[in-house]
Amino acid sequence: MRALWLEDQRLSLRAELPEPVPRTGEALVRVRLAGICGTDLELVRGYYPFTGIPGHEFVGEVVQADDPGLVGRRVVGEINAVCGECENCRAGRPTHCERRDVLGIRGRHGAFADYLALPARNLQPVPDSVPDEAAVFVEPLAAALQIQTQVAVSPDSRVLLVGAGRLGQLIAQTLALTGCDLQVVARHPQQCRLLAGRGIPTVEAANLAERRFDLVVEATGSPSGFELARKAVRPRGTLVLKSTYRGEISVNFSALVVDEISVVGSRCGPFGAALRCLERRLVDPTGLIEAEYPLARGLEAFAAAGQPGALKFLLRP
Amino acid sequence: MRALWLEDQRLSLRAELPEPVPRTGEALVRVRLAGICGTDLELVRGYYPFTGIPGHEFVGEVVQADDPGLVGRRVVGEINAVCGECENCRAGRPTHCERRDVLGIRGRHGAFADYLALPARNLQPVPDSVPDEAAVFVEPLAAALQIQTQVAVSPDSRVLLVGAGRLGQLIAQTLALTGCDLQVVARHPQQCRLLAGRGIPTVEAANLAERRFDLVVEATGSPSGFELARKAVRPRGTLVLKSTYRGEISVNFSALVVDEISVVGSRCGPFGAALRCLERRLVDPTGLIEAEYPLARGLEAFAAAGQPGALKFLLRP
Repeated sequence: MRALWLEDQRLSLRAELPEPVPRTGEALVRVRLAGICGTDLELVRGYYPFTGIPGHEFVGEVVQADDPGLVGRRVVGEINAVCGECENCRAGRPTHCERRDVLGIRGRHGAFADYLALPARNLQPVPDSVPDEAAVFVEPLAAALQIQTQVAVSPDSRVLLVGAGRLGQLIAQTLALTGCDLQVVARHPQQCRLLAGRGIPTVEAANLAERRFDLVVEATGSPSGFELARKAVRPRGTLVLKSTYRGEISVNFSALVVDEISVVGSRCGPFGAALRCLERRLVDPTGLIEAEYPLARGLEAFAAAGQPGALKFLLRP
Repeated sequence: MRALWLEDQRLSLRAELPEPVPRTGEALVRVRLAGICGTDLELVRGYYPFTGIPGHEFVGEVVQADDPGLVGRRVVGEINAVCGECENCRAGRPTHCERRDVLGIRGRHGAFADYLALPARNLQPVPDSVPDEAAVFVEPLAAALQIQTQVAVSPDSRVLLVGAGRLGQLIAQTLALTGCDLQVVARHPQQCRLLAGRGIPTVEAANLAERRFDLVVEATGSPSGFELARKAVRPRGTLVLKSTYRGEISVNFSALVVDEISVVGSRCGPFGAALRCLERRLVDPTGLIEAEYPLARGLEAFAAAGQPGALKFLLRP
């Protein structure tokens, strides 16, 4: 099959890779559409040592599974393949499984390919009313919703989102559903336009009130974004880290203690909720799509997705 | 009056300072007993720029107040003197008042003196059954209890406390009251003996299970203490920062995100609860007392309190 291949921080297109062979309990999925995410770009930049096929945002069609009812279904898939037996799995934290592999990120080939394999229990059927172009966003949309599984967002909360890129746009849309008083720091005109289209106000970093927000979500992954977020959060407020950061960041811990700030790391989220939000049209991710490329032009798509302010680039095998 | 005076990181004994003059709503308190805390030692080391009389842990007797019922009462006092009108005050976060001064720490002379002044509403009468030697611990005991106003500690939580000094001992005693599975990293034999006397197990840092504890409380204020705490907390666990830190600490934020850790800063706590714990003899802080010095020998007491592993040194005016 065809796939993008990452090795030593070099991405290439391979035409004759073997199809994945599903292990016990796994299904084989033909990829219909896949999305390039910030993590994919970071993988290429060497953020994680990963060799293989990247890609973890996808919608596909099951072509082989133990359960005949699953074959032919259009599905999305939870990216963490877990053991079900370790302490974290047993404690209801499967995304923290100590033996997990992660689709296209760690120990498992991913979605920038004609086919992928995942445990059948990871797959969730996509309602007919949700088109591929929306379903391909289920994974990042679930990650956005994860914030609200960790932190209570009240309708009268003052909330700031720092960063309005691929993931930031989905976070903005899901936070806005709470009715909260949301403002977004966005850097690129395109990002601002998308937010304005949904009635979500943006604010210039320079005009930001300090120590004012009950909840601040940092979605830039940059030290300057963290610094801005830190200044904006009020005493006893919460700062959610919703991005990965290269290297270490220096933090004034005494200030965190004096102001009694909570800093909350946030990663993968609930697929079921993400599918419900799409089915009910509460969230519309399709406005984020900048372009769709055939898989054969994947390298070109990666280059475009890596430009500052770029939103979502899709790959169709 | 006599007092210790801090200026340019130099502590001296002054014999003829003026008594504080209570402002509107304030009471004048004769100090009966005061405690030297880690923050006082840090003030002398220049952690905060403070000029004046340090000291914020005290029990005293009211000698002047608008309410005649208060005069003659034995009291402890909440150390944050607040405006009552700013956003934080009105939102129920008075200890984060934007215009606060803090007894012996910021903008207000403290307790290492014959007399101090505080707003009368800050004072809480001490039950007769609680001796001065226990009441003088109300402020740090309240700070220990603050953890449980911020984080739910379940009886079946696995909890690690890193640091068993002055504040750590009080944290250990209050955490133990929840019935939780508590272990403490203590460095000094004296600290271990005190914990053992209350049936609280200690653990060597070298033998510590990694990624195991639901809740970790960091009470050393050192980068190595933080590093240990960070390693010990489980995915989706909580790390409470219960100390001040000099300078900045470098943190791997991506690891916090991947493991979805919550880091919670924690400072001043509820005095009422601390007094109840002492009255009901749920906590016994008196074992922490190493020595009591007359105020006139305050410099000597500070020197002793600054030794590694030192516990509580008291000053009696």
